[in-house]
Amino acid sequence: MNNSRSDFPILDQKVNGEQLVYLDNAATTQKPTSVLNSLVHYYEHDNANVHRGVHTLAERATEEFEAARDKVAAFINAKSRQSVIYTRSTTESLNWIASSFGNSVVNEGDEIVISELEHHSNVVPWQQVAKCQHATLKYIGLTADGELDMADAEKQITDKTKIVSIAHASNVMGVINPIKALTKLAHQHGAYMIADGAQSTPHLKVDVQDLGVDFYAFSGHKMLAPTGIGILYGTPEVLDQMEPAQFGGEMINEVHEQAADWKASPWKYEAGTPNISGAIALGSAIDYLNKLGMDNIQAYEQEIVDYTLPKLLQIDGITVYGPHDPAKHTGVLSFNLKGLHPHDVATGLDMDGIAVRAGHHCAQPLMEYLSCEATCRASFYFYNTKEEADRLLAGLNEVKEFFANGIGKAERTL
Amino acid sequence: MNNSRSDFPILDQKVNGEQLVYLDNAATTQKPTSVLNSLVHYYEHDNANVHRGVHTLAERATEEFEAARDKVAAFINAKSRQSVIYTRSTTESLNWIASSFGNSVVNEGDEIVISELEHHSNVVPWQQVAKCQHATLKYIGLTADGELDMADAEKQITDKTKIVSIAHASNVMGVINPIKALTKLAHQHGAYMIADGAQSTPHLKVDVQDLGVDFYAFSGHKMLAPTGIGILYGTPEVLDQMEPAQFGGEMINEVHEQAADWKASPWKYEAGTPNISGAIALGSAIDYLNKLGMDNIQAYEQEIVDYTLPKLLQIDGITVYGPHDPAKHTGVLSFNLKGLHPHDVATGLDMDGIAVRAGHHCAQPLMEYLSCEATCRASFYFYNTKEEADRLLAGLNEVKEFFANGIGKAERTL
Repeated sequence: MNNSRSDFPILDQKVNGEQLVYLDNAATTQKPTSVLNSLVHYYEHDNANVHRGVHTLAERATEEFEAARDKVAAFINAKSRQSVIYTRSTTESLNWIASSFGNSVVNEGDEIVISELEHHSNVVPWQQVAKCQHATLKYIGLTADGELDMADAEKQITDKTKIVSIAHASNVMGVINPIKALTKLAHQHGAYMIADGAQSTPHLKVDVQDLGVDFYAFSGHKMLAPTGIGILYGTPEVLDQMEPAQFGGEMINEVHEQAADWKASPWKYEAGTPNISGAIALGSAIDYLNKLGMDNIQAYEQEIVDYTLPKLLQIDGITVYGPHDPAKHTGVLSFNLKGLHPHDVATGLDMDGIAVRAGHHCAQPLMEYLSCEATCRASFYFYNTKEEADRLLAGLNEVKEFFANGIGKAERTL
Repeated sequence: MNNSRSDFPILDQKVNGEQLVYLDNAATTQKPTSVLNSLVHYYEHDNANVHRGVHTLAERATEEFEAARDKVAAFINAKSRQSVIYTRSTTESLNWIASSFGNSVVNEGDEIVISELEHHSNVVPWQQVAKCQHATLKYIGLTADGELDMADAEKQITDKTKIVSIAHASNVMGVINPIKALTKLAHQHGAYMIADGAQSTPHLKVDVQDLGVDFYAFSGHKMLAPTGIGILYGTPEVLDQMEPAQFGGEMINEVHEQAADWKASPWKYEAGTPNISGAIALGSAIDYLNKLGMDNIQAYEQEIVDYTLPKLLQIDGITVYGPHDPAKHTGVLSFNLKGLHPHDVATGLDMDGIAVRAGHHCAQPLMEYLSCEATCRASFYFYNTKEEADRLLAGLNEVKEFFANGIGKAERTL
């Protein structure tokens, strides 16, 4: 994996005089040269609008755009390209499911079940559906370890449940949720199962058929692709009954002055010119990930966690969220240092060239649940190294030292 | 303008053995090297997620993302960046206006007024609002010349009208619509005015304050920027009362388990990770257009039309849609050749390396109005030349010849 670093030119830079250590991969990942090359190649050779043209460039663009869809389908083991819809992002995918499918299947008195560790994008759209349909939004709690509490899941999911929507991997707690078991539970009660794959798809082999989910959502930019492209996967059963969330352009079959009807899925969901180059570059990102192998990526990230988490836990005054057993923890490490605001910690680390995130991570209900306002979060990807983990650990000790004794980098360099 | 051609590497290629003549700019435009460079530079130096980070890369990305917003605001003379919302495309912008604002201000018995020359993206969303609210969707007719019939506009827009939504420039008829006069008319009747700027913003100086519109929508990819980025402009008055169409991520102010509220505009509309690199590249596209000067671009395109349209009209058996007076016609030239299907014409031109579009151009109600199923459309941009117009004219004569006598390129090269 370490050989891959030279494919990411952005990593080879100094920030505040120090070699950059980029540990904000749960927010967005960096892009390898091959992905940037595919973007540029598309625009220098083949760019045209898709689906609508008989000329050569339009045909080439359409072929590349649909070939990328096939790559996505294969990557998550979808049965066919008809199940793969291009969106802007996980957030848009979840919003479309909620506003269109959710509002049509959820009725007064029904229940929607999410969990305490969801990202806002898997919370607020469901609050809207609940409000609109006079339904109830329920939360599955967490174990003391920070894992999803399956005993509670069995209580929360009942015959009143119409929708269960859960993150496959948490963007704060560093846990992978048992989506297959949750799907089984949801389906036993006649509910639909949705998984938010934003934090899982980049890091482990996703098999939507094995998981059995009805919908799955993820983002390109968290898995080496450019911003502005995401995926909404749905089974033919749910996509056939779902109405589009946006209208116009080529998603239609026929438009008359007072009425219109739609094409089949996936095209009925893709109103207007899609992010063509983003989709094609997502295809290149998938090529890159496949070359490394998703199992290898997951194993390598596990190695980093096995190395880093025990050392992190040894820092005096640290609270690490989620399981303390490295085997149960992903490369997302959220923590707080006693007496220090996470923003100050992140700013201190940035002075050392180390990029981590601080804040509520778009998971305010979880922050309330954990009784903290914010955390620091270091999140790893396959291009990170143990040496970078060491930089993080050393950086945290320096930040502690600085706030305790005022001895920081500026003084050290005198 | 002709000096600009070397900035567009894609134009320097052969298609079917002939030098490419790209005349499909109303569908999407090509990208100059400076725009591609800005994309690559962003990903090789500054890429991070925006708004949420205190680390250096996140700050740089946020600054560039918001600086691009300021460029967009200045480009259309918006009063402030708060009026400029990033979307995927014109289609998404119009859908958000319709589904959110439209559904809230249109009530039973109210009227929505569009025109016979609208793109599906400015038709179908309003059909949905009309259906949902039990309102009436009305169409302003066209003059014999193919221009918007302002006498009919005065009849259709009444005190029952809540929304008027009209294309600033037609993607088929090659006309510019009098948005300022229509806005005045709409406002006199207490209606809101929306303009679809997809075909105007790339080609002429847009001044939203002078036009007086409440909303204005356009796409980056039709004005040198990548796909996947569009703009929704709104005045503070309408943006303050409009609800977001998507929820989650950083558009929120506070999220609790059962309720949430939003940030101020524009951020309340930008749920999830936006198309950061697309926005920044749109800023670069605007830099490029500003360097050429929008007035110069419009004047140059007018020169091309003045040269081409009279010659096009001389072809035996041709029907050209829209005004025949070049002074009233934009660089969008739609036509049919008697007895030939437009797809055959476009395929024939493609054999000569000439890229034009054939079809209904996402304007089926207009096709019905014109009593034709489809047209050919050649659409020019500033990088096109009179020599390319000559190639189109010669190509059309060859296609006619081929279908009349079977003498085509293949035979000529023997």
